[in-house]
Order: sequence, then structure tokens, then C-alpha cells
Amino acid sequence: MVSISILGSGNVATHLISAFSKADSIHINQIYSRDMKAIQHFKNIANLTDDINSLEPVDLIIIAISDDAIPEFSKKITSKSLVVHTSGSVEMTSLLGNYPKGVFYPLQTFSKSTEVDFSTIPICLEADNDNSLKLLTKVASLISNKIYFINSNQRKKIHLAAVFVNNFTNHLYDIGNSICTENDIPFEILYPLIQETTNKIKNISPKQAQTGPARRNDQKTIENHLKQLSPQRQEIYSTLTKSIIKTYTE
Amino acid sequence: MVSISILGSGNVATHLISAFSKADSIHINQIYSRDMKAIQHFKNIANLTDDINSLEPVDLIIIAISDDAIPEFSKKITSKSLVVHTSGSVEMTSLLGNYPKGVFYPLQTFSKSTEVDFSTIPICLEADNDNSLKLLTKVASLISNKIYFINSNQRKKIHLAAVFVNNFTNHLYDIGNSICTENDIPFEILYPLIQETTNKIKNISPKQAQTGPARRNDQKTIENHLKQLSPQRQEIYSTLTKSIIKTYTE
Repeated sequence: MVSISILGSGNVATHLISAFSKADSIHINQIYSRDMKAIQHFKNIANLTDDINSLEPVDLIIIAISDDAIPEFSKKITSKSLVVHTSGSVEMTSLLGNYPKGVFYPLQTFSKSTEVDFSTIPICLEADNDNSLKLLTKVASLISNKIYFINSNQRKKIHLAAVFVNNFTNHLYDIGNSICTENDIPFEILYPLIQETTNKIKNISPKQAQTGPARRNDQKTIENHLKQLSPQRQEIYSTLTKSIIKTYTE
Repeated sequence: MVSISILGSGNVATHLISAFSKADSIHINQIYSRDMKAIQHFKNIANLTDDINSLEPVDLIIIAISDDAIPEFSKKITSKSLVVHTSGSVEMTSLLGNYPKGVFYPLQTFSKSTEVDFSTIPICLEADNDNSLKLLTKVASLISNKIYFINSNQRKKIHLAAVFVNNFTNHLYDIGNSICTENDIPFEILYPLIQETTNKIKNISPKQAQTGPARRNDQKTIENHLKQLSPQRQEIYSTLTKSIIKTYTE
């Protein structure tokens, strides 16, 4: 049995608590939040506290709070247990206390309302010693089938790549949605195309999968598209088109 | 029984022939290509021809050739049958012969090697008279569950939106893949995130689903990300970030 305490009440904390509470061989000891109301609904799962000095000895303490708050908050923890954070963009060495350190980063976009299947979520692990890494591997394998050993620099790059494939892609969906709405077209008409774009890259590389006017350097269609767009969308269209053409002519 | 002839040997023609040949109540009469070799493998499915003047009377003639070639090619058809093209970006009135006209546009990205399930592909229909539209609806419903009545202007807009959600999104996947490869990270680590980004917009609008540094106007993270990118990728990052910030501050 691995004993874990979780500090935080946001999306990541909530989903981790839910996954750990269902896992065999994991005991959630304490859940901390400075706002007790935010964690009241976990009162049957673990002991709740808003006092950072009352943390009991456990095998693993998980800090799941906002990125910026991690360094200062981590100083307040006096435990000798392994302490990890769950952030994609914060280095392991930003944990500033006198304890073994690590990172337990679930690579997924979480919203509180949506149930997630943790078994398919990649968990990126890092630790400052082998015993800690072994413990993290054990814990991660109890909730997920996809475990990766990723150092702080690589994790930073994953986070950067995620901005492109998640945040920016979502903005392109938003533009697609707006174009549809403005022309009385149901956006759902594009779902199968969006799904197929996503499926394709699991079989062939995105570089090979590229199609469209920019890939063909079809200036007539490109000009025609630009004429139909607002300046803000024109800039996005031009920038991405230029980049695609450059990628395939180099 | 609806009798159909298909003119063309590309991706769309190939997938349509495959779908129609499996459908009840559809008889493929002739398949035309100027290059007989390109359609030899259909010899057990229909009569083959490379002579545009030998087209026999059928209920429906489908032109599935490259966009640019449609107007000139369509002049050569002397049939009195309904003639449609399958293009997203070509107007119905670009069919220049003296016959009833229409459009039969399957909204999907096709590659010859990948099997597609036509039942889930949206088919956009247009015709210059009610009888033709009825016939197209009947044919479309024999291979797909998703039928939309879309005029030429709307179809042009769908094609434009598709560039954003398919071609440009794929290029962002390519950048994500490159960032991973350059840092010894397997690209597959991002698949669940990519899939979830796609799933989310079926439940909430992309506008609501937006997350990330640009959405939070988190200048510290944005600056940090820009420093890690090549000029080409910086331009994409800046342009999309600017557009996201603008979308949520207006």
C-alpha cells in the first residue's frame, strides 16, 4: 500500500484524487487546500486540512497547484517524504524544500466537468534519485498504462509542442466554427474531417499527411481564400501557408 | 435501381466506385478515364472506356476529376442525364454542358491507400432542379447517413473552413512532431492530448474549450516559449497567440 497526500483542489488535483481513490494499493491520506470548502466533497475519501504544517508522514506528497505558486509553496513543506509537482512547464528544481524531489506530470487537458479515463493518459516521470523514480513508476502504473521518463528540459519541450497541437489547433477549430456559423452551415459537418485528420497521423507522419492548397502551392486557390477572410484570419492563413510552402520546398 | 457512370480515376473516384459497388440498388454502368490503365482494376465492376463520346444513357454521371479541369471537360459531355461534380471549391455553374446539373461533394480527406467508411462521411448536395436533387438525395442516402443541402457559396465556405481545421491543423501536428523528434521524445506521447482536443469540441464550442498561455494572456510563458522557437515557428506562435488574445478581449 502506497500512502499519498495531495495538495491542491484544481482540475489536476481533482482528477488525480478520483483516479487514486479507485486504484488498488493506494491510500490517500490527506488532501490539503487553503480553502476547505473547495475540498469538502472529498471528506469521505481522505482527511482534509488547510494547515500546511499538519501534513503527516506518507510515501508521496503531490503538489497540484498553479505553476507560478509552486516555488514559494514548496518551501513551506517540511516533510522528509518524496515531494512532486504535476506541472508541464515547471522544472523539478523549482521545488525548494529539503526533501527528495520529483515530477508526476499527466499529459492531458483536464476540465473539471469531464470524466477522464486515466489509463490512456501518458504520465511523465522525473526524480532526483532512483528510489523515488521507482516509487513514482509504481504509483503511475497503478492508474495508467503509459509511463514515460522525461527530464525537465524534455518536459518543457512537450509543453511547448502541446501548445501547437492543442491550444493552437483548438483556435483553428474556433475559426472553422465561425466561418460555418457566419454562413448558416452546421459546424458538425466538419467533425468527420477533423477526426480523420487526427487519425491519419497515427499511421503516417504529419509531414507525409499534409494536403491542401499550400501543399500544392496552388496560388490561385490561396488568393481566392485570402479574399474571403478578415484581416485577422488573413494573417493566420498567410503565415501558415507560407510555413507549409517553406517546409516542402526546402 | 439507379444507373451511374463515373468519370475519373483519382482518390474521390476510387472511393465512390468502391462505395457504390457495395450499395444495393446502384448499378455502375461505365467508368471513364483518358488513361485506361488507371481503371483496369475496375474491369469486373463496370464497363470501362477512354472515349468521352461513348457514354451511354444513365440516371447520373459523376465527374470526379481535378478542380481546374472540370469546366473544359464538362463541355465535352453531350448526355441529357444529370451531371454532377464532386468538388468542394468549384461552383455548380462551372459545369458547362447542356444537361441538368448538380454537385455531389463528399466532405472528407481521401487517400487511395486508406479504406474509408462512407456511412459517416457528410455528403453535400446541390442541384439546379427538384427532380435532380431528389435523385441525388436517394443516391447519397444509399451510401451515407449524413446528407446536407449546401449551395455553391456555402460549399466554398466549407472548403475554406476545411483548410483551417484540416490542412493547417495538420501543419501544427507536424511542428509538434518536429519539436518532439528534436528532443528525443516519442510523438505518440501527444496522441491522447490531440484526441481529447478533437473530442472536446463535440461537447462544448471551440471558443469555450480554449485553454493555454494565450487564453490566459500569460506573457511570461509566451515569452519563454518564443525564445525556444526558430523564426519560422516564432511567426506562427505569435500570429496565433495574438489572434487568441484578440478573440477573448473583444
